Amino acid sequence: MKLDIRQFSSKDDGFRQDLDQLLSWESVSDANVQKSVENIVNRVRQEGDAALVELTNCFDRRSVQSAAELVIEADELAKAAERVDSTIVDALKQAAERVKSYHERQIQPSWQYEEDNGTVLGQQITPLDRVGVYVPGGKAAYPSSVLMNVMPAKVAGVGEIVMVVPTPDNVVNDIVLAAAHVAGVDRVITVGGAQAVAALAYGTETVPKVDKIVGPGNIYVATAKRMVFGACGIDMIAGPSEILVVSDGLSNPDWIAMDLFSQAEHDEDAQSILISTDADFIAKVKESMERQIEDMSRQEIIKTSLEGRGALIHVDSMEEAIEVANIVAAEHLELSIENPEEWVGKIRHAGAIFMGRYTPEALGDYCAGPNHVLPTSGTARFSSPLGVYDFQKRSSIIYCSHQGASELAKIASPLARGESLEAHAVSAEFRMIDNA
Amino acid sequence: MKLDIRQFSSKDDGFRQDLDQLLSWESVSDANVQKSVENIVNRVRQEGDAALVELTNCFDRRSVQSAAELVIEADELAKAAERVDSTIVDALKQAAERVKSYHERQIQPSWQYEEDNGTVLGQQITPLDRVGVYVPGGKAAYPSSVLMNVMPAKVAGVGEIVMVVPTPDNVVNDIVLAAAHVAGVDRVITVGGAQAVAALAYGTETVPKVDKIVGPGNIYVATAKRMVFGACGIDMIAGPSEILVVSDGLSNPDWIAMDLFSQAEHDEDAQSILISTDADFIAKVKESMERQIEDMSRQEIIKTSLEGRGALIHVDSMEEAIEVANIVAAEHLELSIENPEEWVGKIRHAGAIFMGRYTPEALGDYCAGPNHVLPTSGTARFSSPLGVYDFQKRSSIIYCSHQGASELAKIASPLARGESLEAHAVSAEFRMIDNA
Repeated sequence: MKLDIRQFSSKDDGFRQDLDQLLSWESVSDANVQKSVENIVNRVRQEGDAALVELTNCFDRRSVQSAAELVIEADELAKAAERVDSTIVDALKQAAERVKSYHERQIQPSWQYEEDNGTVLGQQITPLDRVGVYVPGGKAAYPSSVLMNVMPAKVAGVGEIVMVVPTPDNVVNDIVLAAAHVAGVDRVITVGGAQAVAALAYGTETVPKVDKIVGPGNIYVATAKRMVFGACGIDMIAGPSEILVVSDGLSNPDWIAMDLFSQAEHDEDAQSILISTDADFIAKVKESMERQIEDMSRQEIIKTSLEGRGALIHVDSMEEAIEVANIVAAEHLELSIENPEEWVGKIRHAGAIFMGRYTPEALGDYCAGPNHVLPTSGTARFSSPLGVYDFQKRSSIIYCSHQGASELAKIASPLARGESLEAHAVSAEFRMIDNA
Repeated sequence: MKLDIRQFSSKDDGFRQDLDQLLSWESVSDANVQKSVENIVNRVRQEGDAALVELTNCFDRRSVQSAAELVIEADELAKAAERVDSTIVDALKQAAERVKSYHERQIQPSWQYEEDNGTVLGQQITPLDRVGVYVPGGKAAYPSSVLMNVMPAKVAGVGEIVMVVPTPDNVVNDIVLAAAHVAGVDRVITVGGAQAVAALAYGTETVPKVDKIVGPGNIYVATAKRMVFGACGIDMIAGPSEILVVSDGLSNPDWIAMDLFSQAEHDEDAQSILISTDADFIAKVKESMERQIEDMSRQEIIKTSLEGRGALIHVDSMEEAIEVANIVAAEHLELSIENPEEWVGKIRHAGAIFMGRYTPEALGDYCAGPNHVLPTSGTARFSSPLGVYDFQKRSSIIYCSHQGASELAKIASPLARGESLEAHAVSAEFRMIDNA
């Protein structure tokens, strides 16, 4: 099957403009969506369970009588796991174990130090009390996402984890519930959309108010998350998924083609880009894609994605390839090259870096250990993979000795007066030893 | 002067409702502000310098001809510092040194570990390339805020720091520029409002596009920050400042009264709350406030703030005081008690904890070392003081050995097929040793 994929070279005139255009993505903020989400959020906030039940019945074509019917307790999750093929449950358990072990290295302990005069400074680091995890229903219901969103919270020591997942037409996805069981979710509530986000942010009689909401969702969910931010924390708002493969031309073209497919098959807006110093290799990968796509079950999505947002880019040198990679700031960056350890230090921006020929993105998506929730659309320039640090927060610790306070007051007092904040100055001066 | 401050006791009926009402704060999202900010942001994004100059001339009553006139380079900052009283410059330098030394303990190094089969996992941690610091003009132009916003970025190793500060009527604040010099700002641009935020987020011919914008601002600035989020990172949106003092009744009432004033003098919406187990002490603090307010230069603001949002709360025990403190999740929490180290571990939520009788908030505001940019309005439940971690980001590192890839593929493949993601499965399977 012929694939009409954008191809360009760093030698082309206007390369940088072409690149910028390729990368440009703006999530459409539709006034109708905004208005509709606002109504839903306000209703759930004011009417609680009654609105949640009514909206869920309406949007998910259900007929529950009371909010209690929406709750799946932990013991029922265990039963769902028993209904799932044991190969899959075993794989979920192994993946969860690896994700746990990696994330344990992200735990940040409280710290403090004492100055010569006895003053103690530091940070007390504590887990969030309660977290809500949003899991999409339908075709985007990924059990792996349940693990990736829940495990860092568990490792951080979050007290209670509530998961919401819509179950349109009352159809529950047992693998998703099995993943919730394996990850250690405390309770699942079968609601979705903006109404689920509102319930988690403000609490209802049945849904407990949480301190942070994480997890992917459609435009209604994303809009609702933005709206409730402040009442609780939220994770980043994800754009379409992307992969950038940098190849020296010595990898198996079939492997690289399939790595590009693995991103493209997610959805029509996903982006797969190959950069290589070897023009012949680029041609071989293209050939391989045109051959291998024939057998792919998600052929249509792959084709649309590759032709709409994919690109094959020829560059002159590895230096140039790295430079382009830093402009792209990709969610997933594959360095399918010899001695990737010599180049990785030059990568300034990427969500996750997959090094060498044996590290396809797919291994990271499921079970290598690092999180698969990663910054998209160039936001790796300023943000990080989801991690334990997203479920811990810090309180500064300041404990002055009398001597320490006295010395600090001598610095604080003129600065406070310089800012015309007299009470600040006096409050500090009260602690000077001569004044006590 | 009589002060009509809310007083209640944990024994009152409806105490929790009273407390919730006391704490409730919602920043008003005005449709007119929204619309106006949207116009400004779009104009600067499309027209660059031309719009920036025009809007600045209009809003700040200036008459610059070109954007170049808006730039203050580093050498001019040094000259501004020479114009400032040396007591203040010295205090700024000492404060900057202490803030630097504290924040150096927050630097997070890259880490990795190797598994038995040779697979390497870790995180590469890097500083942001370029950061914009917003500094308000006029009455809220605090040199200490320049230090607190810039120093963590410097310590993180951010490549370039651009500060924006409006200079209405062409009046520059030399102390603010001196603070920028001391902190090591690379360049100051004398613009403010939504137009400054837009310029930093999207770049103009003169203002370089930054990766993150930090710093406080009015409702226009806050709205613009929310709007550009995604194009670049932003720090939290701050609400009014708050202090919660917990006292065992053994502190000097005058000190505690002044600590409450130091918060109240910020602005009319600031919140000062005292909790004590000792009703007589509460009465003494109130008496002291009524006496000391007579001499305060910001008397009117203090009175309005205390009467509008302040409270004196009597509780039965320290356990109850701590419980209330965890509900409040205050920006600033003073534990003015004997042996605060025995209680601090029970504090789950607070921006900064000031321990003992010699640690007033004012010392932390200027020079103790920890940051004074702290989560407000209960957001300490899920967020942290500004820190070096806000100017570093992480890239996951995954480097599989062939053996490692082969083992991981056995977990990934069934999970990918369970999610109907065939290309993911094939991409993983390609790396199995038997298939290579």
